[in-house]
Amino acid sequence: MKPLEDYLIIDFSQFLSGPSASLRLADMGARVIKVEKPLTGDICRSMYTSDLIMNGESSIFHTINRNKESFAADLKHPEDLNHIKTLITKADVVMHNFRPGVMERIGLSYDDVKVLNPNVVYAEISGYGLHPELVGNPGQDLLLQSLTALTWLTGNADDGPVPMGLSIVDMLAGAHLAQGILAALYKKAIQNTGALVQVSMLESAIDFQFETITTYFNDGGELPERTKSNNAHAYLGAPYGIYKTKNGYLALAMGSIPVLAELLSCEALLQFPENKFSLRDEIKTVLANHLETQNTSYWLNILEPADIWCAGVLNYQELFEEDGFKVLDFVQKVTMGDGYSYDTTRCPIKIDGELLKSDKGSPKLGEHTDKILKEFIGNG
Amino acid sequence: MKPLEDYLIIDFSQFLSGPSASLRLADMGARVIKVEKPLTGDICRSMYTSDLIMNGESSIFHTINRNKESFAADLKHPEDLNHIKTLITKADVVMHNFRPGVMERIGLSYDDVKVLNPNVVYAEISGYGLHPELVGNPGQDLLLQSLTALTWLTGNADDGPVPMGLSIVDMLAGAHLAQGILAALYKKAIQNTGALVQVSMLESAIDFQFETITTYFNDGGELPERTKSNNAHAYLGAPYGIYKTKNGYLALAMGSIPVLAELLSCEALLQFPENKFSLRDEIKTVLANHLETQNTSYWLNILEPADIWCAGVLNYQELFEEDGFKVLDFVQKVTMGDGYSYDTTRCPIKIDGELLKSDKGSPKLGEHTDKILKEFIGNG
Repeated sequence: MKPLEDYLIIDFSQFLSGPSASLRLADMGARVIKVEKPLTGDICRSMYTSDLIMNGESSIFHTINRNKESFAADLKHPEDLNHIKTLITKADVVMHNFRPGVMERIGLSYDDVKVLNPNVVYAEISGYGLHPELVGNPGQDLLLQSLTALTWLTGNADDGPVPMGLSIVDMLAGAHLAQGILAALYKKAIQNTGALVQVSMLESAIDFQFETITTYFNDGGELPERTKSNNAHAYLGAPYGIYKTKNGYLALAMGSIPVLAELLSCEALLQFPENKFSLRDEIKTVLANHLETQNTSYWLNILEPADIWCAGVLNYQELFEEDGFKVLDFVQKVTMGDGYSYDTTRCPIKIDGELLKSDKGSPKLGEHTDKILKEFIGNG
Repeated sequence: MKPLEDYLIIDFSQFLSGPSASLRLADMGARVIKVEKPLTGDICRSMYTSDLIMNGESSIFHTINRNKESFAADLKHPEDLNHIKTLITKADVVMHNFRPGVMERIGLSYDDVKVLNPNVVYAEISGYGLHPELVGNPGQDLLLQSLTALTWLTGNADDGPVPMGLSIVDMLAGAHLAQGILAALYKKAIQNTGALVQVSMLESAIDFQFETITTYFNDGGELPERTKSNNAHAYLGAPYGIYKTKNGYLALAMGSIPVLAELLSCEALLQFPENKFSLRDEIKTVLANHLETQNTSYWLNILEPADIWCAGVLNYQELFEEDGFKVLDFVQKVTMGDGYSYDTTRCPIKIDGELLKSDKGSPKLGEHTDKILKEFIGNG
């Protein structure tokens, strides 16, 4: 039995941050009813997310919303709102990621919902929390990366700001919301009380940088400095980085420079008798020039037996074609109500040795409205 | 009262992934006893992590291990091991991130620990899960980024692989472990049974890419392609990216190209009557040339009132000096047992409107050994 089996989540959230949290809870066994606007639904069904359309909708929607039911409701329409309120009386968790004020205007603020269901866990993701100037701004991933200085950590010194190429802030805020909800469900199980769980993308993006920010706070206000080439972390010395080889790339993590000089037969490295942080640009340049002279496998065959922290650099094709990867059983085929099937990834958490898999695909907009009405309201 | 108040976690994990999970649980109120090797302790107290030493130890150690106690024990020494076993009988959670086989050899595998404490939640992070070829390899962040193709998503098309400049895989695996532990504690509260929770850095790094990987799986095996310039996401069309302005940078998320053409008075953009994905390189080039002609604030003053998703690009100094940031109360001063104080960030999750703060700094190696022995063993 999955840990959240029999739990009901009413999820008003859209796009990525909130829906990624409810996906995780669905994988853990919860039943997630996704409430969507009639006709258009979740904005990410259609909005510029990738040029790949699957079964009429964006690939990203299908990725994030598998294993959920869709209930179409117009929250400005009194009858629909009454149905939603009935659903809420049965819910363990109510969650949303609207801009501040929206749930209040609809009459579904935490205070409103507590009247309907006193022990509910009410969870929300905002873009900017209590930040007074930003509170009404769009909580969009790239903007959050830019406003929280995250873009000055990746890339090389002369590259300007480089964003991370995934919706990282959305996913972190979603992970934090899932943690908060799970802690609140635990507390509810022990004390039979609900809770309000709040996360903001702004705070999640800052928390993500706790390591570099704490160093910044205690480093006399020096801004993080990336290396001129082969940067992989602003506060780490050489060799930390990815290097070009004759036929590909090699990742090198922490390691002693004199030991590397000897193993790699790189005389020019011997001028650096220790891993001096202030010389990391010079060390990386010497290393980079040397590593270009041989193939990746040549270097790996020397470094791996010597327990140096190194690896080749794979792309998706190389990764997923490995026999080793297949052993992980990480790909799952899910099927939508209309029979359309697609491959996606599974939940990364294993409990009692069991994978948390499910073959349920994403819902068509409003696919489960009638069923849910019959089940909870009785007059669908 | 914090949700995990009175809960006891015995944490054998080192470096970042495991300790970041126990930090989150500590913030939620759990008592975390960090078990460390005598003399050297957690490898990240000293190892090449940044050139910033605070109170004799690496800044990263202080960041990740605040709000914990340190118990020094040599797990190869029978008396120390017996003390640990006594501690385990009182624990709610036992966690580690050793390479596979280490806890088994010590006699602290899940099966061993269940004999001591049948309802324990036993949680572990490995580098590579069940991957047969990689299982014994070092579970290091940069290597995991390289082996899971993550490095082909950031940077521009001709940059080669670009790693994300933070220990992102460590932090994701830690976040997933925390989720699994919380779900297991919840199940324990309901059913009074323990659980085994397993996460691997490899699977966490793949899960993180669920969006791009699902697109890859369903896109006929086409590898993700970054744009030639201003890339921020391999599967998103123009304008998505960060652009240089006359005096700084501007982030632009999703938006209609014709609308932008008009707002920005950019005639050259009018040749693109829609956001055609296949023309995103060309669109970005035109935009980049145009945005360089004025200051960031000039563009923001036009775009923000028109509800275009845009933002300036801040660095740490600009971020933390904002009055708005200070309202978040995100910086906390913590103090070590010897009186040394430092500033760091707090937990990003708010429960019932309360911040989960704590002023307890990181422990000196073995600082709490005697106190814990007296408390649990009685003969310190």
